[in-house]
Amino acid sequence: MQDWEQVRGFRWAGAACGIKASGAADLALLISEHAANWAGVFTTNQVKAASVKRNMALFTTGGVARVVVANSGNANASTGSAGDAAVLRISEAAADAVGCNATEVLTLSTGVIGVPLPDEKISGALPLLVAQPGTIQHAAEAILTTDRLPKLAGESLPGGLRIAGIAKGSGMIAPNMATMLCIIATDARVSAGRLRVLLREAAKQSFNHIVVDGDMSTNDTVLLLANGASGIDAEEDPDFAAALARVCESLAKQMVMDGEGATRFVEVVVEGAASEAEAEMAARAICTSPLCKTAFYGADPNWGRILAAAGRSGAQFDPEQVALWFEREGQAIQMLGAGQPLDYDEATAIELMQGRSWGIRLKLGEGAGAVTLWTCDLSHEYVTINGHYRT
Amino acid sequence: MQDWEQVRGFRWAGAACGIKASGAADLALLISEHAANWAGVFTTNQVKAASVKRNMALFTTGGVARVVVANSGNANASTGSAGDAAVLRISEAAADAVGCNATEVLTLSTGVIGVPLPDEKISGALPLLVAQPGTIQHAAEAILTTDRLPKLAGESLPGGLRIAGIAKGSGMIAPNMATMLCIIATDARVSAGRLRVLLREAAKQSFNHIVVDGDMSTNDTVLLLANGASGIDAEEDPDFAAALARVCESLAKQMVMDGEGATRFVEVVVEGAASEAEAEMAARAICTSPLCKTAFYGADPNWGRILAAAGRSGAQFDPEQVALWFEREGQAIQMLGAGQPLDYDEATAIELMQGRSWGIRLKLGEGAGAVTLWTCDLSHEYVTINGHYRT
Repeated sequence: MQDWEQVRGFRWAGAACGIKASGAADLALLISEHAANWAGVFTTNQVKAASVKRNMALFTTGGVARVVVANSGNANASTGSAGDAAVLRISEAAADAVGCNATEVLTLSTGVIGVPLPDEKISGALPLLVAQPGTIQHAAEAILTTDRLPKLAGESLPGGLRIAGIAKGSGMIAPNMATMLCIIATDARVSAGRLRVLLREAAKQSFNHIVVDGDMSTNDTVLLLANGASGIDAEEDPDFAAALARVCESLAKQMVMDGEGATRFVEVVVEGAASEAEAEMAARAICTSPLCKTAFYGADPNWGRILAAAGRSGAQFDPEQVALWFEREGQAIQMLGAGQPLDYDEATAIELMQGRSWGIRLKLGEGAGAVTLWTCDLSHEYVTINGHYRT
Repeated sequence: MQDWEQVRGFRWAGAACGIKASGAADLALLISEHAANWAGVFTTNQVKAASVKRNMALFTTGGVARVVVANSGNANASTGSAGDAAVLRISEAAADAVGCNATEVLTLSTGVIGVPLPDEKISGALPLLVAQPGTIQHAAEAILTTDRLPKLAGESLPGGLRIAGIAKGSGMIAPNMATMLCIIATDARVSAGRLRVLLREAAKQSFNHIVVDGDMSTNDTVLLLANGASGIDAEEDPDFAAALARVCESLAKQMVMDGEGATRFVEVVVEGAASEAEAEMAARAICTSPLCKTAFYGADPNWGRILAAAGRSGAQFDPEQVALWFEREGQAIQMLGAGQPLDYDEATAIELMQGRSWGIRLKLGEGAGAVTLWTCDLSHEYVTINGHYRT
């Protein structure tokens, strides 16, 4: 066990409470021994799950958190007023089990939309789970849906602070501002206001830079809890903000690596755009293009699709000034220079693309705007997973 | 042969000139005996094929057309200045063969991007093809790439006017303003200005309302030629504009039906939006969502994905006012009413979705904005086709 797996004053738990028909773990807990300041970023989808609506209301009100209850197997979204009532009952049951106020309980759900949540299964399992908590691994496993692997990241800083987080992907990923389920705990002492700024910055450079399939969930949420149990103020450690950003980036990349059906991890760099916003428009068009993503899958250096995606993205550029490279581990193959197609060795390019992880660099000739996004391919397995998700 | 296959004063042709390694037909011609007025709509992608750039310049200049030369197997896009020179040589060869000015030759290309076009194969084949033209079927077959079926549509109006068109899909389809390759000929007498208006209106309600995969090509073009050979003015026939729109709609629907890997045709109706533009945003998000499209493929009535796609589309609506139906041939299954999930028979819904052609009706509670888009599913076959397109 690594140091960061035990963030002082926090306990994790995970178990099966019967929501998933398979009997797999579907209920995760994070309990803080003391009141923790917290911050969250939430989906910008207009259709929001019951738990998202309640968390956002609590976040606006301000206040501390003692517990996060997360279930998989059911998103409790588009479930009407019954869904709202279910979240309230879960919050009350968790508050009873932990001995806190229901407003100190945050809830997360992920899974199928539009099916009533059997909240009595969650409420029934809470007392035992609170009494006998487990490890962060248990919690990481209990929030998975179509993910193949649990996602954890953390750091133990020399100054004494610890940060640990879990996350789940892996479909419906193209965060606009918030993203998938992610819970991060730190024993640093941080004010609620500062925590909000730290999380916003860290999420912007990590979760907001990944794309699996271009869809955005009704449930995307990142929660960060700081209970101060280390007795150390986050401001005392100059590396704390960077460490939080690294934890978020690690979790974000793990989500892409484990994207539904993903066989390749592709870093898409767009530079030389008129602005960062235009660079992101071009990169996002590439990362969501089914034609680009299937070419990644087939290891087909059909680079025209990349240029075509950038061309329809809304980013302004002169096609005669464009350059394009495929890159892997110091190797770079240039396909296009000053808008002219270049001779390149196709066999070498195919071999590069057959790797598990590689990159694309698209250079426009407009300005200094640049961005890096992380994405994956679109495979037969993605279609299999999503064509028959509920069966 | 139907009457409309012979539009007066036009001849069609199609043959193999050796661009496609398979030896399949890859060169199509439309020749007008007399100078024809013409109009075009073109891709809004910033990266435009050489032929698109030249056609747009000719369109801006004004002038008449005698020939359309269309090749498949190579898009001649991102081919630099060599690509521009290739188009000029083709135009001159066609002008020589037909006996007209090179500015009266329009060109179209479709296929792989970024590979030099072997234009000498086209120029070499033109004299024989002009001397021995064939039928509209030959032309329709010669412009296909991954299409499974040729696409033709036409009408012979009681007043004597005829309209005939051919088109090809079937990947890179999400026209924003223009669309795929499509050539339409009519023997009506129509001014160039009026032709422009007629085509813009007809394209807007047809090609702009289809989505296969959300990508937009560098080559999308619709050309409409009117040579007046019937001696009848289009304004004399009150049904002419509607007939042109029907021809466009038929070709557009054929493209979706024959979308890459498509197994289902889905009509997506969004109504009750604050405006037509917002209705289209919601419908387009549904039609491009990989999660919705794979659910269509798997005949999985996972309607939450439809709501989630609309929710992230940018269209403003109150989730508590939404209603949703799945429809086929007079049968309607309601999944959601006033934002509350409704009981429905899942087996019946699955059976409905297993049909070749059905629809979705999403009703928002905001206003009178409505739109109808046509799309298809995302199948294993789509991934197979596009993962290994060039091999």
